[in-house]
Amino acid sequence: MTTLIDLNNASRDDFVAALANVFEHSPWVAEQVAMKRPYAGIAQLFMAMKAAVEQAPSELRLALIKMHPDLADKTQRAAGLTDDSFAEQNSAGLDRLSGAEYDAFQRVNDAYRAKFGFPYIVCVRRHTKDSILRDFERRLPNDIAVEMQTSVEEICRIAALRLDQIVMADDRLAVHGRLSTHVLDTHSGKPAAGIAVELIELAGLGTSRVVTRALTNADGRTDQPLIGGRPVPAGTYELLFSVGDYFARRGVPLSDPPFLDRIPLRFSVSEPEGHLHVPLLVTPWSYATYRGS
Amino acid sequence: MTTLIDLNNASRDDFVAALANVFEHSPWVAEQVAMKRPYAGIAQLFMAMKAAVEQAPSELRLALIKMHPDLADKTQRAAGLTDDSFAEQNSAGLDRLSGAEYDAFQRVNDAYRAKFGFPYIVCVRRHTKDSILRDFERRLPNDIAVEMQTSVEEICRIAALRLDQIVMADDRLAVHGRLSTHVLDTHSGKPAAGIAVELIELAGLGTSRVVTRALTNADGRTDQPLIGGRPVPAGTYELLFSVGDYFARRGVPLSDPPFLDRIPLRFSVSEPEGHLHVPLLVTPWSYATYRGS
Amino acid sequence: MTTLIDLNNASRDDFVAALANVFEHSPWVAEQVAMKRPYAGIAQLFMAMKAAVEQAPSELRLALIKMHPDLADKTQRAAGLTDDSFAEQNSAGLDRLSGAEYDAFQRVNDAYRAKFGFPYIVCVRRHTKDSILRDFERRLPNDIAVEMQTSVEEICRIAALRLDQIVMADDRLAVHGRLSTHVLDTHSGKPAAGIAVELIELAGLGTSRVVTRALTNADGRTDQPLIGGRPVPAGTYELLFSVGDYFARRGVPLSDPPFLDRIPLRFSVSEPEGHLHVPLLVTPWSYATYRGS
Amino acid sequence: MTTLIDLNNASRDDFVAALANVFEHSPWVAEQVAMKRPYAGIAQLFMAMKAAVEQAPSELRLALIKMHPDLADKTQRAAGLTDDSFAEQNSAGLDRLSGAEYDAFQRVNDAYRAKFGFPYIVCVRRHTKDSILRDFERRLPNDIAVEMQTSVEEICRIAALRLDQIVMADDRLAVHGRLSTHVLDTHSGKPAAGIAVELIELAGLGTSRVVTRALTNADGRTDQPLIGGRPVPAGTYELLFSVGDYFARRGVPLSDPPFLDRIPLRFSVSEPEGHLHVPLLVTPWSYATYRGS
Repeated sequence: MTTLIDLNNASRDDFVAALANVFEHSPWVAEQVAMKRPYAGIAQLFMAMKAAVEQAPSELRLALIKMHPDLADKTQRAAGLTDDSFAEQNSAGLDRLSGAEYDAFQRVNDAYRAKFGFPYIVCVRRHTKDSILRDFERRLPNDIAVEMQTSVEEICRIAALRLDQIVMADDRLAVHGRLSTHVLDTHSGKPAAGIAVELIELAGLGTSRVVTRALTNADGRTDQPLIGGRPVPAGTYELLFSVGDYFARRGVPLSDPPFLDRIPLRFSVSEPEGHLHVPLLVTPWSYATYRGS
Repeated sequence: MTTLIDLNNASRDDFVAALANVFEHSPWVAEQVAMKRPYAGIAQLFMAMKAAVEQAPSELRLALIKMHPDLADKTQRAAGLTDDSFAEQNSAGLDRLSGAEYDAFQRVNDAYRAKFGFPYIVCVRRHTKDSILRDFERRLPNDIAVEMQTSVEEICRIAALRLDQIVMADDRLAVHGRLSTHVLDTHSGKPAAGIAVELIELAGLGTSRVVTRALTNADGRTDQPLIGGRPVPAGTYELLFSVGDYFARRGVPLSDPPFLDRIPLRFSVSEPEGHLHVPLLVTPWSYATYRGS
Repeated sequence: MTTLIDLNNASRDDFVAALANVFEHSPWVAEQVAMKRPYAGIAQLFMAMKAAVEQAPSELRLALIKMHPDLADKTQRAAGLTDDSFAEQNSAGLDRLSGAEYDAFQRVNDAYRAKFGFPYIVCVRRHTKDSILRDFERRLPNDIAVEMQTSVEEICRIAALRLDQIVMADDRLAVHGRLSTHVLDTHSGKPAAGIAVELIELAGLGTSRVVTRALTNADGRTDQPLIGGRPVPAGTYELLFSVGDYFARRGVPLSDPPFLDRIPLRFSVSEPEGHLHVPLLVTPWSYATYRGS
Repeated sequence: MTTLIDLNNASRDDFVAALANVFEHSPWVAEQVAMKRPYAGIAQLFMAMKAAVEQAPSELRLALIKMHPDLADKTQRAAGLTDDSFAEQNSAGLDRLSGAEYDAFQRVNDAYRAKFGFPYIVCVRRHTKDSILRDFERRLPNDIAVEMQTSVEEICRIAALRLDQIVMADDRLAVHGRLSTHVLDTHSGKPAAGIAVELIELAGLGTSRVVTRALTNADGRTDQPLIGGRPVPAGTYELLFSVGDYFARRGVPLSDPPFLDRIPLRFSVSEPEGHLHVPLLVTPWSYATYRGS
């Protein structure tokens, strides 16, 4: 990681080297914006890079699009991806696909490339496997002009996240979301401390996976947001709260087995950069939740 | 099915024949109570049969216990169970066990029989596979006197349900429970009609299964209780409500995908003869539930 | 009270005498429908009377309108109202007006009569004092044709309620509403028994008054609906639940004074013939309500 | 207001002058602690003053108690209170008593003084009129030793609040509470902005009064806590939320009049230094609240 100040003061070559892969295999973007230094903030720097791409001749934009690898393509993975692409694809679990999932992605890539002549590109850090497949279904019927435009937008989203990871500045790009929870024990009228919480990403195809586990603290919150410092991938989740153990520990009279034991809250994320708060109000016999903020 | 009046008026032989298998392979119970006719109600008849068993010499009670088959025993099933036992075991899904479940029940039967010298008996219509295994775990540490007593109690529960299916009378035995739901749409302030509801029995071991599917009517209720006219088997369930489709049909603005789509309410049943009401209060952005009655 | 059968079989004179004041001081309505007997139900009888009024020459309809007394007019009350009018006006508390309320009604009557030349008529059993004044404000700007029509509709509502009180039949006129409540203690997971409930009619002008008091029974309900067997007067109400005493009696640990003691639920009734259910879900630290049905 | 640093560096006389009335008419407390300077924080300074009082000879403590005025005593108010006492008594509304309230306080003062020989002292900033009268009822049966002890505790609470208003330091005395609210519109799934909120102190005797009015902001909160920077006086409150106007402005279909218009949440405060959060989750047809933190 480097600072914006250092980048402003760096030699042209060092500047370009630092930002060479913000746009995949396309150091020309960094080259074009090097001369416009200094930048007052990372937002200004990013806007300059985005403008360079958007105003580039369409052949160059098409070349940029074609620089991107297919999603979850085993041959390409074996041949080597850029470190960035590799980490990004893994973030959505594209390195751990089941056979059925692998086939589904293969079909996506092939159908898309057959129609448009370039790879299907999506900012995978903003997605789960399921939402990628939904996004693909939505985009495949488009015409090529729309898809060139959409591809550039997705590439800019990828670039913003890469830039955010490279450059430290006083300002921030609005590329991070947050998912948080809170458990209020309305039986005792106090925040519920010590409740085990599990966040699970539900998969339509293939298998669900645990995203994170946490314990509620004295405030009924988790010390860290369930997801923070990154986009909250679009998709469907289940939060599981172990309330049976909690009330048993407190000595509250329960039925056997307890009426409520592990409470699942199932919800979908549609705005990866939003702040989503999903609280639980609970007694041994009732509960409520709502989309908070 | 017959009526209590007919039974009161029947010949001794017909009376015994009708009730011969209320207690498994033990027509002597019916024989003993035939002479005490007429019975004012089915409850009185059942109490007489129960008293006959409880006051029988302990050898006879032990013989009665030993008349019962093992649970989910393939050899015995092949050799033939009474129709009653066959239907009862199937009601809890003991005819559709996975390999792991079959092994678990085999261990239960063997461990129990090895310790006590008689089969493990439980009124399976009041249980799910999981709750049978839990019941077994709880009972195995008991001494033989307690287990003889418990076995007789379970046999009487089985008998009450069999009697209820054979005899029609003005009064009823309290052997049935009820599980019901209700969906209130607090977005429109009205009962939610046309919501697809699915009741799933969750299995710890092996696979979950759909118990029933229903649509809510104009009152936000299902036309029939989800479970009724029989005990509600002890166990853990999930109710799934398709609220995403419902609000979409009503034209309510939703996120894409909807924040709430299929809402699971997970709860356990501990009183098979109780009336359990599990309602849902719901908007596209919030919901609540509670144990009602 | 009489039965429809008796009315069908009565002499013409007896029939007319029984229904002479269903329409205020206007036996001609009963006279007109006497010849069409027998009636299959009370609904059919009422429809016939309504049709007679609606199809009467407009002079006759105007005369019918003018037969009605002013609301809460002291002079007319002193001179004597029909028994029906007297009871109806008292039901809305028009016999217990404060000075300010009396003045308000006086202004209503005068303004209305000055504009239209006939008294302001409303079916007071469907109203509270406040909703009468609101209804008046809404109707005063109308033209005379609309108000003649509205007056006849209100007269027919009055008539339906009078007929319902006179005639017993197999069918019922849909003139009654219901207001009910239910308290569920989500701290113990059981219906809350023994909670004192008070229903108060809130008055904008003048003073609020207690409509009824009740105790919840073992089901968490009141033995009788809070309002039933009559319209639920349009207006604003407060339900007061003494939950502090309830939880104290149960030995639940509370703050001193209790966080929640007397919980008010404030709501308005807009459909006097509807079934309105206003439940309370409560712990010592939280509560919820909703419009149920 | 002065800073702790200045007080640490001030002459003995200036120090005593600044803190002379922290304990009513009793500069000797400040005199005793002047020599122990410097103080690392306001908490340390306060502990020293408190210790000086608690360790003083009992005649001196009694004299300190007797230095305090009666509550709401017209004669003493006319003769002149210290500025502090004057402002404190007014904070609880003791300057705006109805005749009945004035009489009630008179009886309190007389009964207490008759029994103990010194005035009834309570830290009025932590109380409402009603809770003062409740506190008195609780304390009157005590014996004199308990009441001397209780009086000193109350005097120290008064002193802590006075000190907090005089001295600025890096640390803070834990003398302030907070009352806040939040409105979440679960009809739209968003914080409810622009809802008029009114906080009313309910009085058993005499009249209720509006404590504050506010509008919810874009977060559904009020810009300032409803009560903050001071104790939340023990007592019973009603929060009134104008939700009818809010939903009407948003164009949500409502009944006429709206089912919910001005929603009252009634609750009691028992810990004046606590942080009490009373949120509202609301649709046009339902609402919920709970004690949050």
